[in-house]
Amino acid sequence: MTAKAIQDYYRDEYAHCFGCGRLNKDGMQIQSHWNGEESVCHVMPKPYFTGGVPGTLYGGLIASLIDCHSAATASAAKWHDKVFALDDQPLSRFVTASLKVDYLKPTPMGKMLELRGRVKEIKGQKVIVDVTLSSEQDICARGEVILVQLPEQDVHW
Amino acid sequence: MTAKAIQDYYRDEYAHCFGCGRLNKDGMQIQSHWNGEESVCHVMPKPYFTGGVPGTLYGGLIASLIDCHSAATASAAKWHDKVFALDDQPLSRFVTASLKVDYLKPTPMGKMLELRGRVKEIKGQKVIVDVTLSSEQDICARGEVILVQLPEQDVHW
Repeated sequence: MTAKAIQDYYRDEYAHCFGCGRLNKDGMQIQSHWNGEESVCHVMPKPYFTGGVPGTLYGGLIASLIDCHSAATASAAKWHDKVFALDDQPLSRFVTASLKVDYLKPTPMGKMLELRGRVKEIKGQKVIVDVTLSSEQDICARGEVILVQLPEQDVHW
Repeated sequence: MTAKAIQDYYRDEYAHCFGCGRLNKDGMQIQSHWNGEESVCHVMPKPYFTGGVPGTLYGGLIASLIDCHSAATASAAKWHDKVFALDDQPLSRFVTASLKVDYLKPTPMGKMLELRGRVKEIKGQKVIVDVTLSSEQDICARGEVILVQLPEQDVHW
């Protein structure tokens, strides 16, 4: 498992995402680690991220966590051979083209969640990632995310 | 267009969602209105909901807005004939079974967003909703959401 989080390798300008930007002081700052085969992230959502049904987590937050974790997975999977050897190189950043989440069962509040991401396909600049979100080893949601790598030069829309 | 928001008809116990719960003081409290054919919501995201790329909105937030707005659309579409006539009846609440978002282009920060939801299919307790998210009439994302109606009696998982 990488000691530093994948998000620690993002360039500063791409590190302000509410979900996973280490420089967003109001954000969740999730941290995903790469173990050579998959990415793993543990996160305890804040108590106000409640869903519509008492005791359950907000579905939008589940989608958000899956989105950010899949972006980290794509970065790590595509570049880890080069980058984790060098350790001081920034990782390429991916943006989401399409996100699909299946909510299999209610996700309880007040529990540590585990996200696991695996690359399903890499094709040019496009990476497809499968993610599970679990609470106490019980899979509550599954996501499939299609991501596209940003060009290496600065991108400002 | 309904004067009250669809979310104002949710029962108190289902009104604590971070995205759309009127009783979640830390949440976004989005308000969706039903015009007889579709639901409309205008929202200005807080400045810290930035995405990974400078100047763009957090993709997780886009998914979250689409999720909550589609739940409101399902409630209104399924029950508006009964409920909006009575006006003091709570609306049935829907939970998300599956969420699919296509990110068509970057969504800019600092602009009012418009969500529009239409029901694609109603089948028993299941409703499928199509949602667009626009900035200045430019569609930035599209969602398809499958929702399932909660039983009328209290549900606590």
